[in-house]
Amino acid sequence: MISGKKVNGIRHVHEAPNVRTKINSHDDELVVKQSQQPDNSPLRACLLGRFVEDRFVYRQTFSIRSYEIGPDKTATMETLMNLLQETALNHVTSSGLAGNGFGATREMSLRKLIWVVTRIHIQVQRYSSWGDVVEIDTWVDASGKNAMRRDWIIRDYRTQDIITRATSTWVIMNRETRRLSKIPEQVRQEVLPFYLNTFAIDKEKTDVGKIDKLTDQTAGRIRSGLAPRWSDMDANQHVNNVKYIGWILESVPIHVLEDYNMTSMTLEYRRECRQSNLLESLTSTTASVTEDSNNNNKNKNSHNHNSSNNRKADLEYTHLLRMQADKAEIIRARSEWQSKDEH
Amino acid sequence: MISGKKVNGIRHVHEAPNVRTKINSHDDELVVKQSQQPDNSPLRACLLGRFVEDRFVYRQTFSIRSYEIGPDKTATMETLMNLLQETALNHVTSSGLAGNGFGATREMSLRKLIWVVTRIHIQVQRYSSWGDVVEIDTWVDASGKNAMRRDWIIRDYRTQDIITRATSTWVIMNRETRRLSKIPEQVRQEVLPFYLNTFAIDKEKTDVGKIDKLTDQTAGRIRSGLAPRWSDMDANQHVNNVKYIGWILESVPIHVLEDYNMTSMTLEYRRECRQSNLLESLTSTTASVTEDSNNNNKNKNSHNHNSSNNRKADLEYTHLLRMQADKAEIIRARSEWQSKDEH
Repeated sequence: MISGKKVNGIRHVHEAPNVRTKINSHDDELVVKQSQQPDNSPLRACLLGRFVEDRFVYRQTFSIRSYEIGPDKTATMETLMNLLQETALNHVTSSGLAGNGFGATREMSLRKLIWVVTRIHIQVQRYSSWGDVVEIDTWVDASGKNAMRRDWIIRDYRTQDIITRATSTWVIMNRETRRLSKIPEQVRQEVLPFYLNTFAIDKEKTDVGKIDKLTDQTAGRIRSGLAPRWSDMDANQHVNNVKYIGWILESVPIHVLEDYNMTSMTLEYRRECRQSNLLESLTSTTASVTEDSNNNNKNKNSHNHNSSNNRKADLEYTHLLRMQADKAEIIRARSEWQSKDEH
Repeated sequence: MISGKKVNGIRHVHEAPNVRTKINSHDDELVVKQSQQPDNSPLRACLLGRFVEDRFVYRQTFSIRSYEIGPDKTATMETLMNLLQETALNHVTSSGLAGNGFGATREMSLRKLIWVVTRIHIQVQRYSSWGDVVEIDTWVDASGKNAMRRDWIIRDYRTQDIITRATSTWVIMNRETRRLSKIPEQVRQEVLPFYLNTFAIDKEKTDVGKIDKLTDQTAGRIRSGLAPRWSDMDANQHVNNVKYIGWILESVPIHVLEDYNMTSMTLEYRRECRQSNLLESLTSTTASVTEDSNNNNKNKNSHNHNSSNNRKADLEYTHLLRMQADKAEIIRARSEWQSKDEH
């Protein structure tokens, strides 16, 4: 899902490592033997998640770890995205549908098809601290004729308050030809029983607006020479999807990173990136949203995400991550921020 | 522990975020109510770990997540170090000794003292894959008169094979004066009941040898211009300790990263690093260890760590991470590698 690669304009998820669910073969004192069903052990449920809501929703619980927090001592956006990815992949693995690819079903694997994410939108109401426990629910639904939607909700485990909502759009691609494909009927039949017609983010509050392409002329800030490290690579020798967020933030003013919380982010994936590529990060203020200067934008809804706060963002940015050599687009993004002082 | 900062030659661990152990106040279907003791719930044990072996050992279980694996589809060295750090911090938190600092005891906090790690040595027998479950044991012991040793063992949860061993040395520093301190008697009394005289790595198999300081003349490879990103910063606005490993690897030849497994690493922490500092990574082949050309090295034992393999490393490197501007040392390191083909 979040981790993948892309050719010809759309990201594709990579080949799967050998997924093994070993943890039931050795039960120690941690495991209360509630059930002898291998997949229902409490340890498995705790470490890998479990189905709830008549198997329409997959739920996994995480404690925020000491190394997953940023300078402000709360979980970073990268951490949230990593946890969403992990829950989604465990959902597919646990569904019994998993083929030989990250998130691909058996019928997809037979046809060399893979899911590729085209867009993800996340709204963060509150960031968790070290030791906090969060509960992530995820499910899938149809999205038009040839796409799938995956949504997530993150709750504070103690209070059960919803603290984050996210939604994403997926299409199918042939992993050899790199061409988009319709969803084959056999694949549709596999996934249909899992579809749940519920939206993590109300339709009128989601960000479906076009993200403008930044250029040298329109970007307020440009950071060049960003070099992916070996440790940024994923199992497919491509840049791990979540790492893009770190580079996007490199062209955001540091006082914003320090004094504001990112309350929403929309990522539109456009091209893969390998280690040898030098990157450029471009950021432009979309104007203070409270000035409502965005009436000419194609989607006004995109400027009022944070419904739960009942107030508009203090800052809105448009971002572009591109290759330094040929300026080819890798990812477009939009972010909204609120001052920490006002909370 | 691994995450910290350092002044005057030794790293110090940073101030703690507000550690809360909330997860017991809300039990759902996941939690088998084995015990009403808040700290003994299975969910807490699974997410944050628990004491075993008469409370001398702290144990935490982790599943390797999809985003914690590297290009070869196994957990990275950074991932292992992150998990060691997490287990160590949860050990201190769960001991009831925790003061207001990352890993500091109450008597230490009263005296503005903190633990600082000076050296860490890890031996990796086997790297885990996505979905594998590992079990980490950690404990502490005296180390000379004014230091503490912390050891770890990582087991494959299913087979209970030991797959990684690690040891580290800690001293005490005043967080305001940045001067080293003896261990006050009150602190010694706090930690003594936890001391366990067991070594994760046999004394004759550990790496206690001096790590030579590399220079422009002795380094075979130098990578300059490495720039810490905002997302590399920890809760203390210093570079997260584990991130150093990624920069160290930047000066290792890519064919080694691809074709060899790192079987051991020794890190010697010397100076803190903030975001504004540009870094240089230096690496030098210590010579092929099988040639036994290291007889003039001060500690021959350091060249035969991988006792469990009963064979020497194929490659050994010496590393230095330093400030680009004034060439001040941040960290010295040594690594050993074995060809993947021979496994």
